[in-house]
Amino acid sequence: MYRIRKSITSDLAHAMISAAEAKAHELGVAVNIAIVDESGHLKAFSRMDGAPILSIEIAVNKAYTAVAFGLPTQEWYGLIKDEPSLLYGITHTPRLVIFAGGYPIRVDGEIIGGIGVSGGTLEQDIACAQAALAVLASRKGGGEER
Amino acid sequence: MYRIRKSITSDLAHAMISAAEAKAHELGVAVNIAIVDESGHLKAFSRMDGAPILSIEIAVNKAYTAVAFGLPTQEWYGLIKDEPSLLYGITHTPRLVIFAGGYPIRVDGEIIGGIGVSGGTLEQDIACAQAALAVLASRKGGGEER
Amino acid sequence: MYRIRKSITSDLAHAMISAAEAKAHELGVAVNIAIVDESGHLKAFSRMDGAPILSIEIAVNKAYTAVAFGLPTQEWYGLIKDEPSLLYGITHTPRLVIFAGGYPIRVDGEIIGGIGVSGGTLEQDIACAQAALAVLASRKGGGEER
Amino acid sequence: MYRIRKSITSDLAHAMISAAEAKAHELGVAVNIAIVDESGHLKAFSRMDGAPILSIEIAVNKAYTAVAFGLPTQEWYGLIKDEPSLLYGITHTPRLVIFAGGYPIRVDGEIIGGIGVSGGTLEQDIACAQAALAVLASRKGGGEER
Repeated sequence: MYRIRKSITSDLAHAMISAAEAKAHELGVAVNIAIVDESGHLKAFSRMDGAPILSIEIAVNKAYTAVAFGLPTQEWYGLIKDEPSLLYGITHTPRLVIFAGGYPIRVDGEIIGGIGVSGGTLEQDIACAQAALAVLASRKGGGEER
Repeated sequence: MYRIRKSITSDLAHAMISAAEAKAHELGVAVNIAIVDESGHLKAFSRMDGAPILSIEIAVNKAYTAVAFGLPTQEWYGLIKDEPSLLYGITHTPRLVIFAGGYPIRVDGEIIGGIGVSGGTLEQDIACAQAALAVLASRKGGGEER
Repeated sequence: MYRIRKSITSDLAHAMISAAEAKAHELGVAVNIAIVDESGHLKAFSRMDGAPILSIEIAVNKAYTAVAFGLPTQEWYGLIKDEPSLLYGITHTPRLVIFAGGYPIRVDGEIIGGIGVSGGTLEQDIACAQAALAVLASRKGGGEER
Repeated sequence: MYRIRKSITSDLAHAMISAAEAKAHELGVAVNIAIVDESGHLKAFSRMDGAPILSIEIAVNKAYTAVAFGLPTQEWYGLIKDEPSLLYGITHTPRLVIFAGGYPIRVDGEIIGGIGVSGGTLEQDIACAQAALAVLASRKGGGEER
Protein backbone atom coordinates (compact mmCIF):
# COMPACT_ATOMS: atom_id res chain seq x y z
CA MET A 1 0.00 0.00 0.00
CA TYR A 2 2.90 2.31 0.67
CA ARG A 3 6.63 2.33 0.69
CA ILE A 4 8.82 3.80 3.39
CA ARG A 5 11.17 6.49 2.22
CA LYS A 6 13.91 8.23 4.14
CA SER A 7 14.39 11.94 3.70
CA ILE A 8 17.37 14.05 4.70
CA THR A 9 16.78 16.32 7.69
CA SER A 10 17.33 20.03 7.69
CA ASP A 11 19.87 19.47 10.46
CA LEU A 12 22.02 17.13 8.36
CA ALA A 13 21.69 19.36 5.32
CA HIS A 14 23.04 22.35 7.23
CA ALA A 15 25.91 20.30 8.65
CA MET A 16 26.84 19.09 5.18
CA ILE A 17 26.82 22.62 3.82
CA SER A 18 29.09 23.77 6.65
CA ALA A 19 31.52 20.96 5.90
CA ALA A 20 31.57 21.78 2.20
CA GLU A 21 32.18 25.44 2.97
CA ALA A 22 35.02 24.59 5.34
CA LYS A 23 36.70 22.56 2.60
CA ALA A 24 36.15 25.37 0.09
CA HIS A 25 37.77 27.86 2.46
CA GLU A 26 40.70 25.49 2.84
CA LEU A 27 41.02 25.27 -0.96
CA GLY A 28 40.66 29.02 -1.36
CA VAL A 29 37.64 28.77 -3.63
CA ALA A 30 34.09 30.10 -3.40
CA VAL A 31 31.35 27.66 -4.40
CA ASN A 32 27.60 27.19 -4.44
CA ILE A 33 26.30 24.21 -2.47
CA ALA A 34 22.83 22.76 -2.88
CA ILE A 35 21.16 19.96 -0.96
CA VAL A 36 17.95 18.39 -2.25
CA ASP A 37 15.74 15.81 -0.56
CA GLU A 38 15.05 12.26 -1.75
CA SER A 39 12.50 13.66 -4.21
CA GLY A 40 14.84 16.25 -5.68
CA HIS A 41 13.24 19.27 -3.99
CA LEU A 42 15.58 21.95 -2.64
CA LYS A 43 16.30 21.49 1.04
CA ALA A 44 19.18 23.88 1.72
CA PHE A 45 21.46 26.11 -0.29
CA SER A 46 24.43 28.39 0.25
CA ARG A 47 26.34 30.65 -2.10
CA MET A 48 29.67 31.60 -0.60
CA ASP A 49 30.81 35.21 -0.94
CA GLY A 50 32.15 35.64 -4.44
CA ALA A 51 30.87 32.35 -5.87
CA PRO A 52 29.73 32.62 -9.51
CA ILE A 53 26.03 33.30 -10.00
CA LEU A 54 25.61 31.03 -13.01
CA SER A 55 26.65 28.17 -10.74
CA ILE A 56 23.61 28.66 -8.50
CA GLU A 57 21.47 26.78 -10.94
CA ILE A 58 24.20 24.29 -11.83
CA ALA A 59 24.68 23.33 -8.17
CA VAL A 60 20.95 22.77 -7.69
CA ASN A 61 20.76 20.76 -10.89
CA LYS A 62 23.75 18.59 -9.96
CA ALA A 63 22.00 17.65 -6.72
CA TYR A 64 18.77 17.06 -8.61
CA THR A 65 20.43 14.87 -11.25
CA ALA A 66 22.19 12.80 -8.59
CA VAL A 67 18.89 12.01 -6.89
CA ALA A 68 16.94 11.62 -10.09
CA PHE A 69 19.08 8.71 -11.26
CA GLY A 70 20.85 7.61 -8.11
CA LEU A 71 24.29 8.20 -9.59
CA PRO A 72 27.13 10.62 -9.03
CA THR A 73 26.92 13.06 -11.92
CA GLN A 74 30.48 12.27 -12.96
CA GLU A 75 29.44 8.76 -14.03
CA TRP A 76 27.22 10.03 -16.80
CA TYR A 77 29.85 10.73 -19.40
CA GLY A 78 31.20 7.18 -19.25
CA LEU A 79 27.70 5.80 -19.69
CA ILE A 80 26.84 7.83 -22.77
CA LYS A 81 30.13 8.46 -24.56
CA ASP A 82 29.86 5.50 -26.92
CA GLU A 83 26.25 6.09 -27.87
CA PRO A 84 26.19 9.25 -29.99
CA SER A 85 22.41 9.65 -29.83
CA LEU A 86 22.78 10.05 -26.06
CA LEU A 87 25.99 12.06 -26.18
CA TYR A 88 24.49 14.65 -28.49
CA GLY A 89 20.90 14.22 -27.42
CA ILE A 90 20.30 13.50 -23.78
CA THR A 91 22.82 16.14 -22.74
CA HIS A 92 20.22 18.77 -23.70
CA THR A 93 17.71 17.50 -21.15
CA PRO A 94 16.75 20.37 -18.88
CA ARG A 95 18.31 20.02 -15.39
CA LEU A 96 20.49 17.04 -16.37
CA VAL A 97 24.13 17.65 -15.47
CA ILE A 98 26.68 15.14 -16.77
CA PHE A 99 29.82 16.50 -15.15
CA ALA A 100 31.26 16.07 -11.69
CA GLY A 101 30.06 17.62 -8.46
CA GLY A 102 26.70 15.97 -7.77
CA TYR A 103 26.25 12.95 -5.47
CA PRO A 104 23.37 11.01 -4.02
CA ILE A 105 23.32 11.05 -0.21
CA ARG A 106 22.74 7.50 1.01
CA VAL A 107 22.04 5.88 4.37
CA ASP A 108 22.18 2.08 4.42
CA GLY A 109 22.13 2.11 0.65
CA GLU A 110 18.99 4.21 0.41
CA ILE A 111 18.98 7.66 -1.14
CA ILE A 112 17.87 10.27 1.37
CA GLY A 113 18.91 13.28 -0.71
CA GLY A 114 21.51 14.72 -3.03
CA ILE A 115 24.27 17.29 -2.98
CA GLY A 116 25.61 19.47 -5.75
CA VAL A 117 28.62 21.76 -5.65
CA SER A 118 29.51 24.24 -8.40
CA GLY A 119 31.80 27.20 -8.77
CA GLY A 120 35.30 25.73 -8.60
CA THR A 121 37.15 23.39 -10.91
CA LEU A 122 35.64 19.91 -11.14
CA GLU A 123 38.29 18.68 -8.71
CA GLN A 124 37.45 21.43 -6.23
CA ASP A 125 33.72 20.82 -6.58
CA ILE A 126 34.30 17.10 -5.95
CA ALA A 127 36.48 17.76 -2.90
CA CYS A 128 33.84 20.03 -1.35
CA ALA A 129 31.04 17.55 -2.01
CA GLN A 130 33.05 14.69 -0.55
CA ALA A 131 33.83 16.73 2.57
CA ALA A 132 30.08 17.14 2.97
CA LEU A 133 29.44 13.42 2.45
CA ALA A 134 32.02 12.64 5.14
CA VAL A 135 29.68 14.27 7.67
CA LEU A 136 27.18 11.54 6.93
CA ALA A 137 29.71 8.81 7.62
CA SER A 138 30.77 10.38 10.90
CA ARG A 139 27.16 10.62 12.04
CA LYS A 140 26.50 6.99 11.28
CA GLY A 141 29.59 6.02 13.19
CA GLY A 142 28.49 8.21 16.05
CA GLY A 143 25.16 6.46 16.30
CA GLU A 144 23.21 9.61 15.64
CA GLU A 145 21.15 7.99 12.95
CA ARG A 146 17.49 8.90 13.17
CA MET B 1 31.33 55.44 -13.98
CA TYR B 2 30.10 53.19 -11.20
CA ARG B 3 27.86 53.29 -8.17
CA ILE B 4 28.72 51.70 -4.83
CA ARG B 5 26.44 48.92 -3.65
CA LYS B 6 26.53 46.74 -0.56
CA SER B 7 25.90 43.01 -0.71
CA ILE B 8 24.89 40.73 2.16
CA THR B 9 27.55 38.29 3.32
CA SER B 10 27.08 34.56 3.53
CA ASP B 11 27.74 34.80 7.24
CA LEU B 12 24.85 37.19 7.88
CA ALA B 13 22.55 35.20 5.61
CA HIS B 14 23.15 32.02 7.61
CA ALA B 15 22.61 33.84 10.91
CA MET B 16 19.31 35.25 9.66
CA ILE B 17 18.12 31.82 8.56
CA SER B 18 18.97 30.38 11.98
CA ALA B 19 16.99 33.13 13.68
CA ALA B 20 13.99 32.57 11.43
CA GLU B 21 14.13 28.84 12.10
CA ALA B 22 14.31 29.39 15.86
CA LYS B 23 11.18 31.55 15.68
CA ALA B 24 9.42 28.95 13.53
CA HIS B 25 10.25 26.20 16.05
CA GLU B 26 8.86 28.44 18.78
CA LEU B 27 5.65 28.90 16.77
CA GLY B 28 5.44 25.21 15.94
CA VAL B 29 5.48 25.75 12.21
CA ALA B 30 7.78 24.58 9.42
CA VAL B 31 8.71 27.18 6.82
CA ASN B 32 10.97 27.82 3.87
CA ILE B 33 13.41 30.71 4.25
CA ALA B 34 15.23 32.32 1.34
CA ILE B 35 17.86 35.03 1.38
CA VAL B 36 18.85 36.82 -1.83
CA ASP B 37 21.60 39.37 -2.39
CA GLU B 38 21.10 43.03 -3.30
CA SER B 39 20.50 42.02 -6.91
CA GLY B 40 17.99 39.28 -6.19
CA HIS B 41 20.29 36.27 -6.68
CA LEU B 42 19.87 33.40 -4.22
CA LYS B 43 22.37 33.59 -1.38
CA ALA B 44 21.07 31.03 1.14
CA PHE B 45 18.01 28.85 1.56
CA SER B 46 16.57 26.44 4.08
CA ARG B 47 13.45 24.26 4.01
CA MET B 48 12.61 23.09 7.50
CA ASP B 49 11.54 19.47 7.94
CA GLY B 50 7.91 19.24 6.87
CA ALA B 51 7.70 22.64 5.20
CA PRO B 52 5.53 22.69 2.06
CA ILE B 53 7.38 22.20 -1.22
CA LEU B 54 5.28 24.69 -3.21
CA SER B 55 6.53 27.32 -0.77
CA ILE B 56 10.15 26.81 -1.87
CA GLU B 57 9.58 28.95 -4.90
CA ILE B 58 7.28 31.35 -3.06
CA ALA B 59 9.91 32.05 -0.42
CA VAL B 60 12.57 32.71 -3.05
CA ASN B 61 10.22 34.98 -4.98
CA LYS B 62 9.19 36.92 -1.88
CA ALA B 63 12.84 37.69 -1.23
CA TYR B 64 13.34 38.57 -4.89
CA THR B 65 10.30 40.87 -5.01
CA ALA B 66 11.39 42.67 -1.85
CA VAL B 67 14.76 43.46 -3.41
CA ALA B 68 13.42 44.17 -6.88
CA PHE B 69 11.24 47.04 -5.67
CA GLY B 70 12.69 47.85 -2.24
CA LEU B 71 9.39 47.23 -0.46
CA PRO B 72 8.06 44.64 2.00
CA THR B 73 5.82 42.40 -0.11
CA GLN B 74 2.86 43.07 2.17
CA GLU B 75 2.72 46.69 0.97
CA TRP B 76 1.84 45.72 -2.57
CA TYR B 77 -1.86 45.09 -2.10
CA GLY B 78 -2.43 48.54 -0.62
CA LEU B 79 -0.65 50.11 -3.56
CA ILE B 80 -2.66 48.35 -6.26
CA LYS B 81 -6.09 47.66 -4.74
CA ASP B 82 -7.71 50.79 -6.16
CA GLU B 83 -6.29 50.44 -9.65
CA PRO B 84 -7.97 47.45 -11.28
CA SER B 85 -5.56 47.26 -14.22
CA LEU B 86 -2.80 46.56 -11.70
CA LEU B 87 -4.90 44.38 -9.42
CA TYR B 88 -5.86 42.10 -12.30
CA GLY B 89 -2.74 42.67 -14.36
CA ILE B 90 0.51 43.17 -12.49
CA THR B 91 -0.27 40.33 -10.10
CA HIS B 92 0.52 37.88 -12.90
CA THR B 93 4.06 39.14 -13.34
CA PRO B 94 6.39 36.16 -13.01
CA ARG B 95 8.19 36.14 -9.63
CA LEU B 96 6.15 39.06 -8.21
CA VAL B 97 4.62 38.20 -4.82
CA ILE B 98 2.09 40.67 -3.38
CA PHE B 99 1.41 39.03 -0.02
CA ALA B 100 3.28 39.17 3.25
CA GLY B 101 6.56 37.49 4.11
CA GLY B 102 9.19 39.26 2.00
CA TYR B 103 11.35 42.13 3.26
CA PRO B 104 14.31 44.09 2.00
CA ILE B 105 17.37 43.79 4.24
CA ARG B 106 18.79 47.26 4.78
CA VAL B 107 21.93 48.68 6.36
CA ASP B 108 22.00 52.45 6.79
CA GLY B 109 19.03 52.68 4.47
CA GLU B 110 20.68 50.74 1.67
CA ILE B 111 19.39 47.40 0.44
CA ILE B 112 22.00 44.69 0.90
CA GLY B 113 19.62 41.77 0.25
CA GLY B 114 16.15 40.40 0.82
CA ILE B 115 14.46 37.71 2.87
CA GLY B 116 11.37 35.67 2.06
CA VAL B 117 9.56 33.26 4.35
CA SER B 118 6.77 30.95 3.20
CA GLY B 119 4.99 27.91 4.57
CA GLY B 120 3.06 29.20 7.57
CA THR B 121 0.16 31.61 7.83
CA LEU B 122 0.99 35.11 6.71
CA GLU B 123 1.32 36.09 10.39
CA GLN B 124 3.73 33.23 11.03
CA ASP B 125 5.75 34.03 7.92
CA ILE B 126 5.98 37.66 9.04
CA ALA B 127 7.05 36.69 12.56
CA CYS B 128 9.84 34.46 11.24
CA ALA B 129 11.08 37.10 8.80
CA GLN B 130 11.10 39.75 11.48
CA ALA B 131 13.05 37.48 13.83
CA ALA B 132 15.63 37.21 11.06
CA LEU B 133 15.72 40.96 10.52
CA ALA B 134 16.31 41.45 14.26
CA VAL B 135 19.69 39.76 13.79
CA LEU B 136 20.68 42.63 11.58
CA ALA B 137 19.77 45.20 14.22
CA SER B 138 21.71 43.35 16.91
CA ARG B 139 24.79 43.22 14.71
CA LYS B 140 24.66 46.89 14.02
CA GLY B 141 24.31 47.60 17.71
CA GLY B 142 27.21 45.31 18.44
CA GLY B 143 29.50 47.24 16.16
CA GLU B 144 30.20 44.25 13.97
CA GLU B 145 29.45 46.15 10.84
CA ARG B 146 31.57 44.94 8.00
CA MET C 1 27.72 41.88 7.33
CA TYR C 2 28.05 43.18 3.79
CA ARG C 3 30.55 43.39 0.99
CA ILE C 4 31.13 46.48 -1.14
CA ARG C 5 30.39 46.12 -4.82
CA LYS C 6 30.58 48.58 -7.69
CA SER C 7 27.88 48.82 -10.33
CA ILE C 8 28.17 50.35 -13.80
CA THR C 9 26.29 53.59 -14.33
CA SER C 10 23.75 54.16 -17.06
CA ASP C 11 25.96 56.94 -18.36
CA LEU C 12 28.95 54.67 -18.90
CA ALA C 13 26.76 51.96 -20.39
CA HIS C 14 25.41 54.34 -23.03
CA ALA C 15 28.90 55.61 -23.85
CA MET C 16 30.15 52.05 -24.31
CA ILE C 17 27.26 51.21 -26.63
CA SER C 18 27.99 54.29 -28.73
CA ALA C 19 31.63 53.28 -29.03
CA ALA C 20 30.72 49.75 -30.06
CA GLU C 21 28.30 51.08 -32.66
CA ALA C 22 30.90 53.45 -34.07
CA LYS C 23 33.29 50.54 -34.51
CA ALA C 24 30.57 48.43 -36.11
CA HIS C 25 29.80 51.22 -38.59
CA GLU C 26 33.49 51.41 -39.39
CA LEU C 27 33.56 47.65 -40.01
CA GLY C 28 30.35 47.77 -42.05
CA VAL C 29 28.51 45.33 -39.82
CA ALA C 30 25.31 45.56 -37.78
CA VAL C 31 25.45 44.08 -34.29
CA ASN C 32 23.49 43.76 -31.06
CA ILE C 33 25.19 45.21 -28.00
CA ALA C 34 24.13 44.41 -24.44
CA ILE C 35 25.44 45.83 -21.18
CA VAL C 36 24.58 44.16 -17.87
CA ASP C 37 25.38 45.32 -14.36
CA GLU C 38 27.71 43.57 -11.91
CA SER C 39 24.95 41.09 -11.09
CA GLY C 40 24.05 40.26 -14.66
CA HIS C 41 20.85 42.32 -14.94
CA LEU C 42 20.30 44.15 -18.22
CA LYS C 43 21.42 47.77 -18.02
CA ALA C 44 21.38 48.93 -21.65
CA PHE C 45 20.88 47.39 -25.06
CA SER C 46 20.99 48.39 -28.69
CA ARG C 47 20.22 46.51 -31.88
CA MET C 48 21.66 48.30 -34.86
CA ASP C 49 19.54 48.55 -37.98
CA GLY C 50 19.76 45.22 -39.77
CA ALA C 51 21.37 43.27 -36.92
CA PRO C 52 20.13 39.67 -36.64
CA ILE C 53 17.27 39.10 -34.19
CA LEU C 54 18.56 35.76 -32.90
CA SER C 55 21.61 37.63 -31.71
CA ILE C 56 19.55 39.78 -29.33
CA GLU C 57 19.51 36.99 -26.78
CA ILE C 58 23.06 35.89 -27.59
CA ALA C 59 24.40 39.38 -26.90
CA VAL C 60 22.57 39.57 -23.59
CA ASN C 61 23.78 36.12 -22.62
CA LYS C 62 27.37 36.87 -23.55
CA ALA C 63 27.31 39.84 -21.21
CA TYR C 64 25.63 37.74 -18.53
CA THR C 65 28.15 34.89 -18.85
CA ALA C 66 31.08 37.29 -18.65
CA VAL C 67 29.77 38.67 -15.36
CA ALA C 68 28.61 35.34 -13.99
CA PHE C 69 32.11 33.86 -14.10
CA GLY C 70 34.34 36.90 -14.44
CA LEU C 71 35.89 35.71 -17.69
CA PRO C 72 35.80 36.78 -21.32
CA THR C 73 33.51 34.28 -23.01
CA GLN C 74 36.23 33.35 -25.49
CA GLU C 75 38.26 31.71 -22.70
CA TRP C 76 35.67 29.02 -22.06
CA TYR C 77 36.53 26.71 -24.91
CA GLY C 78 40.17 26.45 -23.83
CA LEU C 79 39.05 25.60 -20.32
CA ILE C 80 36.70 22.78 -21.30
CA LYS C 81 38.09 21.34 -24.53
CA ASP C 82 40.05 18.56 -22.82
CA GLU C 83 37.28 17.51 -20.45
CA PRO C 84 34.55 15.86 -22.53
CA SER C 85 31.95 15.87 -19.74
CA LEU C 86 32.14 19.67 -19.78
CA LEU C 87 32.49 19.99 -23.53
CA TYR C 88 29.32 17.96 -24.11
CA GLY C 89 27.63 18.88 -20.86
CA ILE C 90 28.18 22.39 -19.53
CA THR C 91 27.72 23.90 -22.97
CA HIS C 92 23.99 23.26 -22.62
CA THR C 93 23.66 25.39 -19.50
CA PRO C 94 20.97 27.98 -20.15
CA ARG C 95 22.46 31.45 -20.77
CA LEU C 96 26.06 30.18 -20.86
CA VAL C 97 27.89 31.32 -24.01
CA ILE C 98 31.31 29.81 -24.69
CA PHE C 99 32.29 31.76 -27.79
CA ALA C 100 33.82 35.18 -28.22
CA GLY C 101 32.14 38.54 -27.75
CA GLY C 102 31.46 38.79 -24.02
CA TYR C 103 33.74 40.60 -21.57
CA PRO C 104 33.61 41.61 -17.94
CA ILE C 105 33.85 45.36 -17.42
CA ARG C 106 36.38 46.02 -14.66
CA VAL C 107 37.48 49.05 -12.69
CA ASP C 108 40.55 48.58 -10.51
CA GLY C 109 40.16 44.84 -10.97
CA GLU C 110 36.57 44.74 -9.80
CA ILE C 111 33.72 43.72 -12.05
CA ILE C 112 31.20 46.54 -12.44
CA GLY C 113 29.31 44.98 -15.34
CA GLY C 114 29.60 43.04 -18.56
CA ILE C 115 29.31 43.63 -22.30
CA GLY C 116 28.17 41.25 -25.00
CA VAL C 117 28.26 41.84 -28.74
CA SER C 118 26.65 39.54 -31.28
CA GLY C 119 25.70 39.71 -34.91
CA GLY C 120 29.00 39.86 -36.77
CA THR C 121 31.79 37.34 -37.12
CA LEU C 122 33.54 36.50 -33.88
CA GLU C 123 36.35 38.85 -34.88
CA GLN C 124 33.92 41.68 -35.56
CA ASP C 125 32.07 41.06 -32.31
CA ILE C 126 35.38 41.16 -30.45
CA ALA C 127 36.46 44.37 -32.17
CA CYS C 128 33.21 46.12 -31.26
CA ALA C 129 33.36 44.95 -27.64
CA GLN C 130 36.95 46.09 -27.32
CA ALA C 131 36.10 49.49 -28.75
CA ALA C 132 33.50 49.75 -25.99
CA LEU C 133 35.97 48.67 -23.32
CA ALA C 134 38.39 51.36 -24.53
CA VAL C 135 35.89 53.96 -23.32
CA LEU C 136 36.43 52.70 -19.83
CA ALA C 137 40.18 53.14 -20.08
CA SER C 138 39.84 56.66 -21.42
CA ARG C 139 37.54 57.63 -18.56
CA LYS C 140 39.94 56.31 -16.00
CA GLY C 141 42.74 58.24 -17.62
CA GLY C 142 40.63 61.36 -17.67
CA GLY C 143 40.03 61.18 -13.96
CA GLU C 144 36.29 61.02 -14.34
CA GLU C 145 36.02 58.08 -12.03
CA ARG C 146 32.79 58.16 -10.12
CA MET D 1 3.47 39.13 -53.09
CA TYR D 2 4.77 41.22 -50.26
CA ARG D 3 3.74 44.04 -48.04
CA ILE D 4 5.83 47.05 -47.16
CA ARG D 5 6.49 47.50 -43.47
CA LYS D 6 8.14 50.37 -41.70
CA SER D 7 10.52 49.67 -38.87
CA ILE D 8 11.86 52.09 -36.28
CA THR D 9 15.52 53.01 -36.72
CA SER D 10 18.12 52.63 -34.05
CA ASP D 11 18.64 56.37 -34.26
CA LEU D 12 15.03 57.18 -33.39
CA ALA D 13 14.97 54.53 -30.67
CA HIS D 14 17.97 56.10 -28.93
CA ALA D 15 16.47 59.58 -29.21
CA MET D 16 13.21 58.37 -27.69
CA ILE D 17 15.04 56.73 -24.79
CA SER D 18 16.96 59.95 -24.14
CA ALA D 19 13.71 61.93 -24.08
CA ALA D 20 12.08 59.46 -21.69
CA GLU D 21 15.12 59.62 -19.42
CA ALA D 22 15.09 63.42 -19.43
CA LYS D 23 11.47 63.38 -18.34
CA ALA D 24 12.21 60.79 -15.64
CA HIS D 25 15.04 62.95 -14.30
CA GLU D 26 12.65 65.89 -14.23
CA LEU D 27 10.12 63.80 -12.27
CA GLY D 28 12.80 62.47 -9.93
CA VAL D 29 12.11 58.82 -10.77
CA ALA D 30 14.27 56.03 -12.18
CA VAL D 31 12.63 53.89 -14.85
CA ASN D 32 13.31 51.17 -17.37
CA ILE D 33 12.63 52.06 -21.00
CA ALA D 34 12.29 49.51 -23.78
CA ILE D 35 11.82 50.07 -27.48
CA VAL D 36 10.78 47.20 -29.76
CA ASP D 37 10.49 47.17 -33.53
CA GLU D 38 7.33 46.67 -35.57
CA SER D 39 7.62 42.90 -35.00
CA GLY D 40 8.00 43.16 -31.24
CA HIS D 41 11.74 42.39 -31.13
CA LEU D 42 13.89 44.40 -28.74
CA LYS D 43 15.53 47.37 -30.45
CA ALA D 44 16.90 49.42 -27.55
CA PHE D 45 16.73 49.41 -23.78
CA SER D 46 17.91 51.46 -20.85
CA ARG D 47 17.66 50.93 -17.11
CA MET D 48 18.32 54.16 -15.28
CA ASP D 49 20.50 54.01 -12.17
CA GLY D 50 18.33 52.74 -9.34
CA ALA D 51 15.38 51.59 -11.46
CA PRO D 52 13.73 48.38 -10.16
CA ILE D 53 15.00 45.17 -11.71
CA LEU D 54 11.61 43.46 -11.89
CA SER D 55 10.54 46.29 -14.18
CA ILE D 56 13.12 45.32 -16.81
CA GLU D 57 10.86 42.57 -18.05
CA ILE D 58 7.69 44.61 -17.53
CA ALA D 59 9.02 47.47 -19.67
CA VAL D 60 9.96 45.09 -22.48
CA ASN D 61 6.57 43.38 -22.28
CA LYS D 62 4.65 46.67 -22.30
CA ALA D 63 6.40 47.60 -25.55
CA TYR D 64 5.75 44.13 -26.92
CA THR D 65 2.05 44.19 -25.98
CA ALA D 66 1.60 47.61 -27.54
CA VAL D 67 2.96 46.39 -30.87
CA ALA D 68 1.31 43.00 -30.68
CA PHE D 69 -2.19 44.48 -30.63
CA GLY D 70 -1.61 48.03 -31.84
CA LEU D 71 -3.05 49.56 -28.66
CA PRO D 72 -1.70 51.52 -25.73
CA THR D 73 -1.54 49.02 -22.88
CA GLN D 74 -3.77 51.19 -20.73
CA GLU D 75 -6.75 50.51 -23.02
CA TRP D 76 -6.82 46.82 -22.18
CA TYR D 77 -8.61 47.01 -18.87
CA GLY D 78 -11.56 48.89 -20.35
CA LEU D 79 -11.84 46.30 -23.09
CA ILE D 80 -11.93 43.28 -20.80
CA LYS D 81 -13.46 44.47 -17.53
CA ASP D 82 -17.03 43.45 -18.38
CA GLU D 83 -16.13 40.01 -19.69
CA PRO D 84 -15.01 37.94 -16.70
CA SER D 85 -13.53 35.15 -18.80
CA LEU D 86 -11.09 37.69 -20.21
CA LEU D 87 -10.57 39.59 -16.96
CA TYR D 88 -9.59 36.44 -15.10
CA GLY D 89 -8.24 34.51 -18.04
CA ILE D 90 -6.44 36.52 -20.67
CA THR D 91 -4.54 38.48 -18.02
CA HIS D 92 -2.41 35.37 -17.46
CA THR D 93 -1.13 35.38 -21.03
CA PRO D 94 2.66 35.47 -20.94
CA ARG D 95 4.04 38.88 -21.96
CA LEU D 96 0.60 40.55 -22.03
CA VAL D 97 0.57 43.71 -19.91
CA ILE D 98 -2.83 45.34 -19.31
CA PHE D 99 -1.73 48.41 -17.39
CA ALA D 100 -0.40 51.75 -18.51
CA GLY D 101 3.04 52.55 -19.87
CA GLY D 102 3.16 50.82 -23.27
CA TYR D 103 2.42 52.58 -26.57
CA PRO D 104 2.66 51.77 -30.24
CA ILE D 105 4.97 54.09 -32.13
CA ARG D 106 3.23 55.20 -35.31
CA VAL D 107 4.20 57.13 -38.41
CA ASP D 108 1.35 58.09 -40.74
CA GLY D 109 -0.88 55.68 -38.87
CA GLU D 110 1.45 52.73 -39.31
CA ILE D 111 3.12 51.00 -36.41
CA ILE D 112 6.89 51.18 -36.69
CA GLY D 113 7.61 50.00 -33.14
CA GLY D 114 6.54 50.17 -29.51
CA ILE D 115 7.72 51.74 -26.30
CA GLY D 116 7.31 50.50 -22.74
CA VAL D 117 8.22 52.33 -19.56
CA SER D 118 8.18 50.75 -16.11
CA GLY D 119 9.51 51.59 -12.68
CA GLY D 120 7.53 54.63 -11.58
CA THR D 121 3.86 55.07 -10.80
CA LEU D 122 1.57 54.54 -13.76
CA GLU D 123 1.34 58.31 -14.17
CA GLN D 124 5.11 58.65 -14.18
CA ASP D 125 5.52 55.78 -16.63
CA ILE D 126 2.94 57.40 -18.93
CA ALA D 127 4.64 60.80 -18.72
CA CYS D 128 8.02 59.32 -19.67
CA ALA D 129 6.56 57.35 -22.56
CA GLN D 130 4.73 60.38 -23.88
CA ALA D 131 7.89 62.47 -23.68
CA ALA D 132 9.50 59.83 -25.87
CA LEU D 133 6.60 59.83 -28.32
CA ALA D 134 6.89 63.61 -28.61
CA VAL D 135 10.29 63.10 -30.25
CA LEU D 136 8.52 61.36 -33.07
CA ALA D 137 6.17 64.29 -33.59
CA SER D 138 9.04 66.78 -33.61
CA ARG D 139 10.92 64.74 -36.18
CA LYS D 140 7.93 64.56 -38.47
CA GLY D 141 7.44 68.26 -38.14
CA GLY D 142 11.09 68.81 -38.85
CA GLY D 143 10.95 66.89 -42.09
CA GLU D 144 13.47 64.32 -40.99
CA GLU D 145 11.22 61.47 -41.91
CA ARG D 146 12.88 58.82 -43.98
